[in-house]
Amino acid sequence: MQEGNRQWRLVSYPEGMPVETNWALSDGVIPEARANEIVARAIYLDVAPYMRGRISPQRNYAAGVKPGDVMLGGGIGEVVQSNAKQFKPGDIVVTDFSFGWQQYAALKSSAVRRVEPEIASLPYWLDALGLNGMTAYFALIEAGRIKPGDTVVISAAAGSVGQIAGQIAKLSGCRAIGITSSQEKVAFCKDVGYDDAINYRAEADLVAAVARACPRGVDVFIDNTAGVIHEAVMQNLATHARVVLVGSISLAGKFGQPDVGPRFHRQTLIARATIKGFLVSDYQQDQAEARQRMAEWVKAGMLKSKFDIAKGIENTPKAFLRLLTSQNLGKQLVQIADEPKARST
Amino acid sequence: MQEGNRQWRLVSYPEGMPVETNWALSDGVIPEARANEIVARAIYLDVAPYMRGRISPQRNYAAGVKPGDVMLGGGIGEVVQSNAKQFKPGDIVVTDFSFGWQQYAALKSSAVRRVEPEIASLPYWLDALGLNGMTAYFALIEAGRIKPGDTVVISAAAGSVGQIAGQIAKLSGCRAIGITSSQEKVAFCKDVGYDDAINYRAEADLVAAVARACPRGVDVFIDNTAGVIHEAVMQNLATHARVVLVGSISLAGKFGQPDVGPRFHRQTLIARATIKGFLVSDYQQDQAEARQRMAEWVKAGMLKSKFDIAKGIENTPKAFLRLLTSQNLGKQLVQIADEPKARST
Repeated sequence: MQEGNRQWRLVSYPEGMPVETNWALSDGVIPEARANEIVARAIYLDVAPYMRGRISPQRNYAAGVKPGDVMLGGGIGEVVQSNAKQFKPGDIVVTDFSFGWQQYAALKSSAVRRVEPEIASLPYWLDALGLNGMTAYFALIEAGRIKPGDTVVISAAAGSVGQIAGQIAKLSGCRAIGITSSQEKVAFCKDVGYDDAINYRAEADLVAAVARACPRGVDVFIDNTAGVIHEAVMQNLATHARVVLVGSISLAGKFGQPDVGPRFHRQTLIARATIKGFLVSDYQQDQAEARQRMAEWVKAGMLKSKFDIAKGIENTPKAFLRLLTSQNLGKQLVQIADEPKARST
Repeated sequence: MQEGNRQWRLVSYPEGMPVETNWALSDGVIPEARANEIVARAIYLDVAPYMRGRISPQRNYAAGVKPGDVMLGGGIGEVVQSNAKQFKPGDIVVTDFSFGWQQYAALKSSAVRRVEPEIASLPYWLDALGLNGMTAYFALIEAGRIKPGDTVVISAAAGSVGQIAGQIAKLSGCRAIGITSSQEKVAFCKDVGYDDAINYRAEADLVAAVARACPRGVDVFIDNTAGVIHEAVMQNLATHARVVLVGSISLAGKFGQPDVGPRFHRQTLIARATIKGFLVSDYQQDQAEARQRMAEWVKAGMLKSKFDIAKGIENTPKAFLRLLTSQNLGKQLVQIADEPKARST
């Protein structure tokens, strides 16, 4: 461990696709825990597509990071100091958004949850048992209202939300079709449990490829990408289809610019489809129950994630950029320190 | 009255905007009523935007008219022959789709409803108490889930659905903003009861004009047009906005061609908006109750329609084209014969 607290601060808003120099690594101090706070030492930090929207002056659903601020993000850490009665040094905790890209964070006790390694290994708490799992669960079950027998198409299918969503769809009795960006990821999707997967970059006619994979049309579409994949699926909707807009990673390189292309007003009307913008934080009050259900699936080995783990605080922006350019395979995390040895309790 | 049965038959599918020569007037025979049928003599025929979608080889939500067929459409007529116990000669009946552009129609008794002139004058039965009223009612109340205090924007606000929708929104405690295509129609909207109306053709910056009219954002958008009006409203959505796609009259001239333009994936996601393709026939089982409620409003003088009535079977395609090119003011109908004198019962 180094002395001090290395932190990635935003230097400038990216224009289009972010580059590493949009952030700078600086040395800060290790904070002190105030009332009802803990200080945690980072073990894993999260990088995720939603962060692209938070480093833009554009209107978003939540406040953004300003140049000069420490970059936001979830993380798993070990409590090193506690001023909150629920936590003591040595506890492992997770926070969805509040850790930041840094080695030490002061965190409100209300913003963290206890990690239970006996349920699942640490990375799962930033994945199936964290934002990704909640996103996949509520997008499918609440916004998408999946029912057994539905044909469910998921874009960015090998991504962090996608790999979980495909498995929840299967566990719910649906047919799960993934759309992804390479043959390697097609194999990954099938390995994860998708019934079929399409490499959109290899298809000259993606509309026809989706039609072949979904001969009765698409009942539920979990859209993590926008762009050309969205276009192809919108031309294959079944009557009363539900389209859940979860993300727009294909727009990461043209953030803030208008997205121009074919629109599907008539198709939406004719299918009487519902298109729903989705944000996981709208489902806050139901997360405890959903997390419990996910934990049961994970503990029983019925739901597994693959991870792509970079090492070292210095590689955090690189890991984020790998993600934005589809180079990762599995949920992308950054490991900042070794996992603590299991304590005898 | 003429002998025989003058009928408008489709000659060819329009390319883009329909022209009068897509139909031809021919002389047919007056049909005979088979079991459970009546024959009615047309008094009013309906022309409506949905008909554009029915004269196209493109996929639609319902079967289309083929070249050679009598053009479809609703109508009000007087029963001249009955082979159905519910109806007798002299009764006035209305049908939503089945009359066709002709002087006489044989109609299944299950496809017609009795007109009650004591509740409202005849044209209302093809308007507030017909498809237009049901469309406005279910689009707002079921698909749009309006609640008191909502800001409701309605496009084609002076149109047949729009004028009713504005009034239902007001009767439901909402703020109603219309978007329409001329200063004359702005005045028409305000006269009908809209709080405010925008002439989109007069606005250099329609996004800003909608923002001025809706300072807290748009909660519910009843979209009858698609196109540039859709674009402007989508940039003014309030959180959890509901967008109901009812029609796409701005696309009437480019039917079957791709609709290319700015898309609002991010805005939809950030607002967590719901966009819903709407078709009134999905609400069939609730129509009796809705029609009852509408009839009470109409009878009490709380809901009024304005009509734009062409005369003579020979002017039916012209009236339809007036509608597609926004030249009508009020619900467009075609009067085929004089209304019968009120009977003493």
